[in-house]
Amino acid sequence: MTPTADLLITNGLVITMDAQNRIFENGAVTIIGDAIAAIGPADKLGATPARETIDACGGIVMPGLVNTHTHAAMTLFRGLADDLPLAEWLNDHIFPAEALLDADKVHAGTLLGCAEMILSGITCFCDMYLFEGAAARAAAAAGMRAVVGEVLYDFPSPNYGPIEKGFDCTRLLIDTWKDDPLVSVAVEPHSPYLCAPDLLTEAANIARDNRVPLVIHLSETRKEVEDVRQKYGATPVGHLAELGVLAPNLLACHCVVLSDEDMDLLAEHDVKVSHNPESNMKLASGIAPVAELIRRGICTGLGTDGCSSNNNLDLFAEMDMAAKLHKASSLDPTVMDAATVLHMATIDGARALGLDRITGSLESGKKADIIVIDTNRPHLTPMYRPESHLVYAVGGSDVTATIVNGRVLMKDRRLLHLDLEKTMADARQIANEIRNG
Amino acid sequence: MTPTADLLITNGLVITMDAQNRIFENGAVTIIGDAIAAIGPADKLGATPARETIDACGGIVMPGLVNTHTHAAMTLFRGLADDLPLAEWLNDHIFPAEALLDADKVHAGTLLGCAEMILSGITCFCDMYLFEGAAARAAAAAGMRAVVGEVLYDFPSPNYGPIEKGFDCTRLLIDTWKDDPLVSVAVEPHSPYLCAPDLLTEAANIARDNRVPLVIHLSETRKEVEDVRQKYGATPVGHLAELGVLAPNLLACHCVVLSDEDMDLLAEHDVKVSHNPESNMKLASGIAPVAELIRRGICTGLGTDGCSSNNNLDLFAEMDMAAKLHKASSLDPTVMDAATVLHMATIDGARALGLDRITGSLESGKKADIIVIDTNRPHLTPMYRPESHLVYAVGGSDVTATIVNGRVLMKDRRLLHLDLEKTMADARQIANEIRNG
Repeated sequence: MTPTADLLITNGLVITMDAQNRIFENGAVTIIGDAIAAIGPADKLGATPARETIDACGGIVMPGLVNTHTHAAMTLFRGLADDLPLAEWLNDHIFPAEALLDADKVHAGTLLGCAEMILSGITCFCDMYLFEGAAARAAAAAGMRAVVGEVLYDFPSPNYGPIEKGFDCTRLLIDTWKDDPLVSVAVEPHSPYLCAPDLLTEAANIARDNRVPLVIHLSETRKEVEDVRQKYGATPVGHLAELGVLAPNLLACHCVVLSDEDMDLLAEHDVKVSHNPESNMKLASGIAPVAELIRRGICTGLGTDGCSSNNNLDLFAEMDMAAKLHKASSLDPTVMDAATVLHMATIDGARALGLDRITGSLESGKKADIIVIDTNRPHLTPMYRPESHLVYAVGGSDVTATIVNGRVLMKDRRLLHLDLEKTMADARQIANEIRNG
Repeated sequence: MTPTADLLITNGLVITMDAQNRIFENGAVTIIGDAIAAIGPADKLGATPARETIDACGGIVMPGLVNTHTHAAMTLFRGLADDLPLAEWLNDHIFPAEALLDADKVHAGTLLGCAEMILSGITCFCDMYLFEGAAARAAAAAGMRAVVGEVLYDFPSPNYGPIEKGFDCTRLLIDTWKDDPLVSVAVEPHSPYLCAPDLLTEAANIARDNRVPLVIHLSETRKEVEDVRQKYGATPVGHLAELGVLAPNLLACHCVVLSDEDMDLLAEHDVKVSHNPESNMKLASGIAPVAELIRRGICTGLGTDGCSSNNNLDLFAEMDMAAKLHKASSLDPTVMDAATVLHMATIDGARALGLDRITGSLESGKKADIIVIDTNRPHLTPMYRPESHLVYAVGGSDVTATIVNGRVLMKDRRLLHLDLEKTMADARQIANEIRNG
């Protein structure tokens, strides 16, 4: 028979994460080119002639996960230093290591991050780092969907030098990647404490003019809030409000320390939030009021943050952490239920990045960003409710296929388009350089 | 050459967890019979003629993990119900499901739990449940080291009936398993709120007379503390102190809600503690003051608790959670450093069970309870400090060999002495019965 689909995924429990939260107990998905053609019962779609078929073997088929905040190249610093006071960790370990970076090293580290993310079911990530042109090339080479942005701050960057060049660098990135099917660009000022008001407003202007997201670290620590309050007489959120930077295209990462007024402002301006529980815990930043953000209708995605403060890029672990942390801190076992957390890791994450018409759910016409999970494993047996398993029991290593933009990037735990041994060897080589200072 | 060892594990980064915290960067371990014969550099021991050799391929070789508190058969209820108020969860879901249990079902559920634990690097666990004779047989069949105990409480048990029979049941268990190389028995009253003073003192007497551990849930929730205080005019710990039950052979599980005086009492009587962060978070019990317990020198191990409140038995995930949770709650990134948490999951856990002369560290003469971890994986690359990886990046699925009592139970992710497909099928069958009520 002439193939009518390029790819067929069948015999799976299909969780769409669409607006109706449709689930097909024995379902199938057909893909033509880069997009989802149809979703439905396997007894209807499962016989579709296709160039390639993936048998989900009764496992779960769902949208690929969306990692709304990371610094992918920091895989290079995984476990370099932990359990230290923040200033010592940054000044004695992370900053000296970052001073050794260049575009090639960021490319290598990002590629390693992509390998890890693809293997753990992440199909889309939002990155902030130095030398992001290299990060963009690595993401494209790995075949991942990515939003990248060169980090902007007041002091000279090892990449672009003074901030004026940072704006040029960002504009060039936007221009370079504007027609790419996978990679898009955001404007990414670091934070209110490392960016002067002029930088923040100019960054917001560039983002607005180019209709791209604006990504920032916001209200991550108590110290940040105190410092910004001392300097500008407002909370970090209030400060951004006064500068006119709060807007629906703003993705505010962390948001650990928020007042009621801050949350009102975020809701009023439809600001998106990236919640990074593992990083916030490991760095002892605190516990973000995420249940309250969601109660107020603020779109909140999940992020792993970088590998130096996590120390992996497993969004399944992040889901488990998010679901449990807020129960412990609120003493309420009903907050952050599995369905809510699953939305954060998929469609809400996509919405936070402005990509919800492209990815984050399985719907006809959307890009085919799909993962398959093997549930025939002892730690996933028996299965009463798949959402519960996905949040509380599945790990990244249970993902057996990862498809981005219709292309199978991983199958049976093997990366199909990335030289994993070389990628790991390159990272080890760079780690040796970092170790030797 | 005539073999001089039964098993040789070589070419690994050997982390002994012995009193000197010795690490051999390129090390080997030889095993004769059920015990470790020697540990040392691979260039010295690696050429030992052995009946069987495991090449660690540069990965980590370390003691098997010790799970100090679980209800292994509750794998059968994994994800049955979550995100509910405690009373609704227990009364509407867990208790009705438990009413359907019998010895065969507990055997099947425990076997599934053993499969999961072996695959994630746990070599020893402490179990509390109904029909624990069946749990003991399952652990022995799986080849795991286990401390089991029939749960005792005031109301009639579906297993033994009235409490007098419960004491008989416990004595019989102790007698049955007293010479077993793997399974030993503890006396396990459920908690101060489900056990009258007479039950608690008799349980303590049986444990003392038979020189076995006494295991109890203690101070798990605020409600327990309030209820016990109302009924007995003391905190749960204070109540046990007054009954004369606090002793070095007591393992107190959870210990979430503790006063300063409680901690003084636990320290004074050398009581051991099992910390179960994921369960305490998921059930919204709260955050145990573990850093403070350790500061006071109280021996504290880690436990997964049962699968209905976790929902897996991965002690690597539990380590990650323990290391991060207390940083977030104390806002101090230096508490619960990787080395401390690694001790909890190994030698301190063994000590908590009274098994520290048998397991929990790699030392000549100790039983060979050993795991091998593959570090040649993207999410474990690069590696600066192995302790950091073990706590913050390794997952149970990275374990590639599990040896208990000198016997290889798992190699290359395959269980060698357990019919995994049958074990999972049996559990699914029981889940169907539970689903249909």
